[in-house]
Amino acid sequence: MTKRQIHLGLFILGTGSHIAGWRYPGAFDSFQDLSQIQEIGRIAERGKFDLIFMGDNLYADPAAHPSYTARLEPLTMLSALSVTTKHIGLGATASTTYGDPFSTARAFASLDHISNGRAAWNAVTTSNAVTGANFGRAHPDHALRYEIAEEFVGVVKQLWDCWDDDAIVADRASGLYIDPAKVHALNHDGKWFQVKGPLNIGRSPQGQPIVLQAGGSAPGQRLAARTADVVFSVVQDFDEAQKQYASFKALLPEFGRQAEHVTVLPGVMPVVGRTDREAFDKLKTLQSFVSSTNAVAMLSDRFGKDMSVYDLDGPIPDDLKPSDAYHAFASVMLAKARRENMTLRDLYNLTAAARGHWVLCGSAETVADTLQHWFENGAADGFNIMPPYFPGGFDDFVDLVVPILQERGLFRADYEGTTLRDHLGLARPEPKR
Amino acid sequence: MTKRQIHLGLFILGTGSHIAGWRYPGAFDSFQDLSQIQEIGRIAERGKFDLIFMGDNLYADPAAHPSYTARLEPLTMLSALSVTTKHIGLGATASTTYGDPFSTARAFASLDHISNGRAAWNAVTTSNAVTGANFGRAHPDHALRYEIAEEFVGVVKQLWDCWDDDAIVADRASGLYIDPAKVHALNHDGKWFQVKGPLNIGRSPQGQPIVLQAGGSAPGQRLAARTADVVFSVVQDFDEAQKQYASFKALLPEFGRQAEHVTVLPGVMPVVGRTDREAFDKLKTLQSFVSSTNAVAMLSDRFGKDMSVYDLDGPIPDDLKPSDAYHAFASVMLAKARRENMTLRDLYNLTAAARGHWVLCGSAETVADTLQHWFENGAADGFNIMPPYFPGGFDDFVDLVVPILQERGLFRADYEGTTLRDHLGLARPEPKR
Repeated sequence: MTKRQIHLGLFILGTGSHIAGWRYPGAFDSFQDLSQIQEIGRIAERGKFDLIFMGDNLYADPAAHPSYTARLEPLTMLSALSVTTKHIGLGATASTTYGDPFSTARAFASLDHISNGRAAWNAVTTSNAVTGANFGRAHPDHALRYEIAEEFVGVVKQLWDCWDDDAIVADRASGLYIDPAKVHALNHDGKWFQVKGPLNIGRSPQGQPIVLQAGGSAPGQRLAARTADVVFSVVQDFDEAQKQYASFKALLPEFGRQAEHVTVLPGVMPVVGRTDREAFDKLKTLQSFVSSTNAVAMLSDRFGKDMSVYDLDGPIPDDLKPSDAYHAFASVMLAKARRENMTLRDLYNLTAAARGHWVLCGSAETVADTLQHWFENGAADGFNIMPPYFPGGFDDFVDLVVPILQERGLFRADYEGTTLRDHLGLARPEPKR
Repeated sequence: MTKRQIHLGLFILGTGSHIAGWRYPGAFDSFQDLSQIQEIGRIAERGKFDLIFMGDNLYADPAAHPSYTARLEPLTMLSALSVTTKHIGLGATASTTYGDPFSTARAFASLDHISNGRAAWNAVTTSNAVTGANFGRAHPDHALRYEIAEEFVGVVKQLWDCWDDDAIVADRASGLYIDPAKVHALNHDGKWFQVKGPLNIGRSPQGQPIVLQAGGSAPGQRLAARTADVVFSVVQDFDEAQKQYASFKALLPEFGRQAEHVTVLPGVMPVVGRTDREAFDKLKTLQSFVSSTNAVAMLSDRFGKDMSVYDLDGPIPDDLKPSDAYHAFASVMLAKARRENMTLRDLYNLTAAARGHWVLCGSAETVADTLQHWFENGAADGFNIMPPYFPGGFDDFVDLVVPILQERGLFRADYEGTTLRDHLGLARPEPKR
């Protein structure tokens, strides 16, 4: 049996995960330019990554993170990217609160056909309440969003199974194109959705595109345990990650699943140098680019309240608590800030750096050692790599850290399969009906 | 001043517009295989076409036209196709009844960025009532669909104008990425939609992606006169086309527009041979592939009722009339059938051939002469070419007919601009606010 392998996802949030990464010398500064995305795709495949995964938002806030506000739409962008990549999985975010199951199932099945089996759907419930105003609806509360999401994801998965694999006959002699007996209506009649089906696209190369999820709250964890193939988590240190990993994997048997059925990837923003010193200098440079307007806007977004009312150099306010939006981010950041007696300014620097994700700064050896430690000690199945900026901040990881992981036999030297399921070691499922 | 030029659109309906075109020897028989679409794109650019335009449906009917039922989703597919094409416009169908303005505006702006200014939105209200069952909603009636569509298209166009062209500053020195003063909320509060905006993507290369429309009914014509840049029409003969063309162009001044602002492209399925005889033999072969099940299903779809109850060899039933669905198709086909004393079987053969569109069969000279006659006599600004099958049925047109049109100075010898607006001779609009 092959040694257990690290899985690597690349998280793309436009100009980079660092709020001011685009200001770094030589950094890409557009997220509307396909040629830059194509370059990122080439680097990711050079690094033999499992997948590229696009975050998303459905609102614009010109004062906050630029990548939230001026960006390509994920499904169109990844469809284009599928043409200039060959191996890597392509994960797009789509909302269960502001989409519909038929269109969502169809778009991802289409991406799966287009990419020959590399599509993944990051199913999110959409945290930010301002989104509702772009869709003429009140933003549902956290519990309701997850109730809707449970049904939504279930319907999408059933829609993907409407077609038998051999339903398209295309027999020129008889004139039979589709065997109607092999295409099954769904007739879903639920609390939130009524969807007759079948989908108007045949079963896709992966059978079911991969489902990604990132929900950190209790309902989010349960939704992921029931439906996700890959889980992104928000953590700030090893103990926390280990605890979260164990508690998530412990949920799986309840849903008839085993630990190896779901790949858990903590998010990490690596800042890599040839030495620890060099890496810390890079981080310092990055942090020097943060403007307080940006950081306070990001913090306000994360905590769902106006943070500009507090004294930046005072302690973390006692009454500050995670809101309905970004529950996992806010909880993890607050816990760390209180544990480490941070000021609000420290917290905002932390948030500006990686939006609340773990920042791992050091030499390539340091970074590789840390990742290996997490991987081998029950804290991760791999990592969701969130470069602070592109392309340099990603090149550093791919060219300096990946080769070490490969030498240690922890990460593939080359792609062995063709689909994202292959990369993740997941079998192609039979249709369930 | 340059001589007025014919505009050519390629209509893609999967395996071809002929219901059984996929059975033709050598024809492509999949619409889920990107490599076949890429080949079609290469042929279209060899033919210097203005645009490729994808029809769409939001339901599956395994017994009807195969292309309705097993196909890639248009936006993902055209995004992928944008990468292997350089010049041609890319038009995707998206529904105003089963979509939402924010997501629609965003996706087409994204495609416009990805393709460097080649995106077009075919705004449809979705005719077929069974669609509602895939979205948990009652299908609105014809009048209501158009009322909703008027508001929907207006909101989308305003969303495209939320960003000034120079709103993205990306100034590394100052740290200003977006100038908030140049990004404008919409605050639309209408009868059907409430959309705050702004869009989370900057203004796209064309300023406004091109809007296509095909509605043949009176409300459809008015919507097109108000909002469309290109109109596809359904016609069966010259007199009718001339009348329709004149009446549509006469509507434009009411909306502050002129005849040259909207390109009218009647749909035509060309069946081209080296001689008229060869062309008619091809059509005969194509028609021999039609199965009665397919044809009756297509006819039932077009007329919104079960057509299998009628005697195929009897006359056109007196009580048969255009229904709410596919109003233009049904009207045009019925008028022709009654004018020409067709039997129901004749009607179904006509429908099977091109779903109710005009079939133009003959030698390349015959076809070119006819198109020129229409173009020069107030019946068309160009044509929406609907090949019966791919690639041969399209190669015939591009390799045999296009050179004749070029020799006669009626069609471009090469692309002169880079965006779809350039091909259509339309200026890039300033944002309206």
